[in-house]
Amino acid sequence: MASLSTEVVHLSRPAGFSFAGIHCGIKKTAGAPDLTLILSETACTAAAVFTQNRYAAAPVQYDQQLLALNPDGVQAVLVNSGNANAVTGSEGLAATRRSAEAVEATFGLAPWSTFVMSTGVNGQPLPVERIEAALPHLYQALRPDAAGFEAAASAIMTTDTRMKVASAQGMVGGATVTVAGMAKGAGMIHPNMATMLAAVVTDANIDSEALHAALKQAADESFNRISVDGDTSTNDTLVVLANGLAGNSIIARSNDFSRSLSEFTDLLTQVCTALAQAIVRDGEGATRFVSIQVSGLGDDAEAHRVANAIAISPLVKTAVYGGDANWGRILMAAGNSRANFDPALAELWISGGERADAMLPPLHLVSSGAPLAFDESESAHRFAQPELLIDLRLGPGAGRATVWTCDLSHEYVTVNGSYRT
Amino acid sequence: MASLSTEVVHLSRPAGFSFAGIHCGIKKTAGAPDLTLILSETACTAAAVFTQNRYAAAPVQYDQQLLALNPDGVQAVLVNSGNANAVTGSEGLAATRRSAEAVEATFGLAPWSTFVMSTGVNGQPLPVERIEAALPHLYQALRPDAAGFEAAASAIMTTDTRMKVASAQGMVGGATVTVAGMAKGAGMIHPNMATMLAAVVTDANIDSEALHAALKQAADESFNRISVDGDTSTNDTLVVLANGLAGNSIIARSNDFSRSLSEFTDLLTQVCTALAQAIVRDGEGATRFVSIQVSGLGDDAEAHRVANAIAISPLVKTAVYGGDANWGRILMAAGNSRANFDPALAELWISGGERADAMLPPLHLVSSGAPLAFDESESAHRFAQPELLIDLRLGPGAGRATVWTCDLSHEYVTVNGSYRT
Repeated sequence: MASLSTEVVHLSRPAGFSFAGIHCGIKKTAGAPDLTLILSETACTAAAVFTQNRYAAAPVQYDQQLLALNPDGVQAVLVNSGNANAVTGSEGLAATRRSAEAVEATFGLAPWSTFVMSTGVNGQPLPVERIEAALPHLYQALRPDAAGFEAAASAIMTTDTRMKVASAQGMVGGATVTVAGMAKGAGMIHPNMATMLAAVVTDANIDSEALHAALKQAADESFNRISVDGDTSTNDTLVVLANGLAGNSIIARSNDFSRSLSEFTDLLTQVCTALAQAIVRDGEGATRFVSIQVSGLGDDAEAHRVANAIAISPLVKTAVYGGDANWGRILMAAGNSRANFDPALAELWISGGERADAMLPPLHLVSSGAPLAFDESESAHRFAQPELLIDLRLGPGAGRATVWTCDLSHEYVTVNGSYRT
Repeated sequence: MASLSTEVVHLSRPAGFSFAGIHCGIKKTAGAPDLTLILSETACTAAAVFTQNRYAAAPVQYDQQLLALNPDGVQAVLVNSGNANAVTGSEGLAATRRSAEAVEATFGLAPWSTFVMSTGVNGQPLPVERIEAALPHLYQALRPDAAGFEAAASAIMTTDTRMKVASAQGMVGGATVTVAGMAKGAGMIHPNMATMLAAVVTDANIDSEALHAALKQAADESFNRISVDGDTSTNDTLVVLANGLAGNSIIARSNDFSRSLSEFTDLLTQVCTALAQAIVRDGEGATRFVSIQVSGLGDDAEAHRVANAIAISPLVKTAVYGGDANWGRILMAAGNSRANFDPALAELWISGGERADAMLPPLHLVSSGAPLAFDESESAHRFAQPELLIDLRLGPGAGRATVWTCDLSHEYVTVNGSYRT
């Protein structure tokens, strides 16, 4: 049985990794941590997923190149916060490469072994010399323990109000495997846009092809299920490194190790889901966490389309902020998805609770496509909870999907409408 | 030369139409106008475009049926505000039909000759008996003059803060043709969602097939170019009635009257554009009107995709609200559109002014995909204007599009987050 932790003091950490987070001077605030290193004792297999935005930032371009060249020889992840190195052209790409090469030289790593991730302001040159000057301090700060993990997870934050970490441990192919990760959120960077970064490390023994398959499935069920404001940044990156020290028989697609691949994918998905949900909970100005469950469509993709249309609707999000059981806006957003369903079959329930596993009985708002009378005080009681569940069933089909989002508040407008200067 | 008017006292009105707007009791406020009738002396050819939302309201379903059955014999448009008759099932459709038949009986019209439009709360039965009881008063209130037009345009309003009317007059096929219209806006209905309604009347002599082609083109260049919050209501409807009294030779596609069709389409587009822009200017909580011009793409559809992605981005809209020349969010939104362009070719300018035809010199923010240094006070000066122009060029292609939108303000969140009760 896998055990999931989301608090730094209770995290399991995979063997063979050390972590550091320090201040190197990219952030203006004195002492604010802005540089993270994750280092494996041995070369890792690696996989990653990246932003689909056409303005992919320099580190995204660099990491894509690295992954194509050396997917079985990655050993480090360097992350800076305070400068996204995005919309910076060929100079930006050169700066990313220089920072990776400096890590490889300082830590005695092979070429093309260091992922780079950046988050912060756009369109400003990356002060790569500050990163280079800080590498000796980063070396000294490296620790394999909880304090090292916490420092690393802190130094990737920007407008995040809290650290986002998770780990899961379980049996994979007869050995105990640990997966641990850290993320920073989709809060908007002052002055520019949101970035979601996540780095996951594991001691699983898995080849890069199987790792890619596992990560793709995990991302589809976690980071691809969240929405804060529907926008995607230039820097969004999720990387995973596997160093094999758990000693399980190697998981490889060609070996048809389908059971151990599935066991590993489950652990990875748990960690990614916890990190993705933590990002939504810490969305800018968010006052409520909303799970949107849609079922009864022809297939899962159709259901995802409907759930996403509800999740990104400003009308639904402001209604949730206002505590308004506005079934009309939810149906309208579903209707806007262009998914194929019969409106007359819609059944809608809402519920709310302290936590996802402690929900009040659901309130039935719409049946057979028509609104039901409901008790406003019962509705208000559910909306007063920090977690809200919207459960929409649109027919007899087997297609289902869940998407997580947050509300749209005055604070969101304040944070994102503020002057850059 | 066509003459466009957007103020009710200066409107031209086509021959043969009369108008009324009265209180029938659907809105709770005593005396609040909530019932409009537009009546032609003679049968009209008709065309319409409707919401694509899967939850099409009863009047939308009814009008679609009417248009299929009798496109050359429409004589009246009945509009009620205060109740959208949406998500009301077969009873809702029966209520719409009953209201149309009551108009036809009262005014001695042929069956299937009355369009019905509704806007207001969703999921509540339409009090059709109040409409029936009010028809004698509506009859007495009918006037062909400016006062009648103003009363009709007032009674379709809900959260609109001002009336939206426009007319254009010009030579079509050698005769003077007049097009006049009224619209209500995409402001959110308390307690449910936005509806955009527009009714346009003309004395042009045009068959229903050509009228449909003209309306489709006019809508593509006007109502399909606006975005307040990216949502589409259950009731959105644009209808046009043409009674032929201008006496021009009939415009018919089969006759290859391409020149007069083009002249007429131009008049219709002017009226639809003025109405669509008026809706954006009166968007809920809107403090700025924003024109987004995108050019240099492979075709117009690609350019439209980019412009729309910018227009619906909450990050761009909050930045505009905050007066922030946030070129990064604009590029990011363009990059999210999945349109095909080279990011390194991006050129971005912004400008602002009192009116679209009185803009300050544009400020160049991005060149060859990279940010330029710019004078913050010059930027602030442009953002302090009520009209903003975002001009984004993404390459050498001929594809271009303009979309109009407004900013996303605290007031939007307040209006849409308020409790229904």
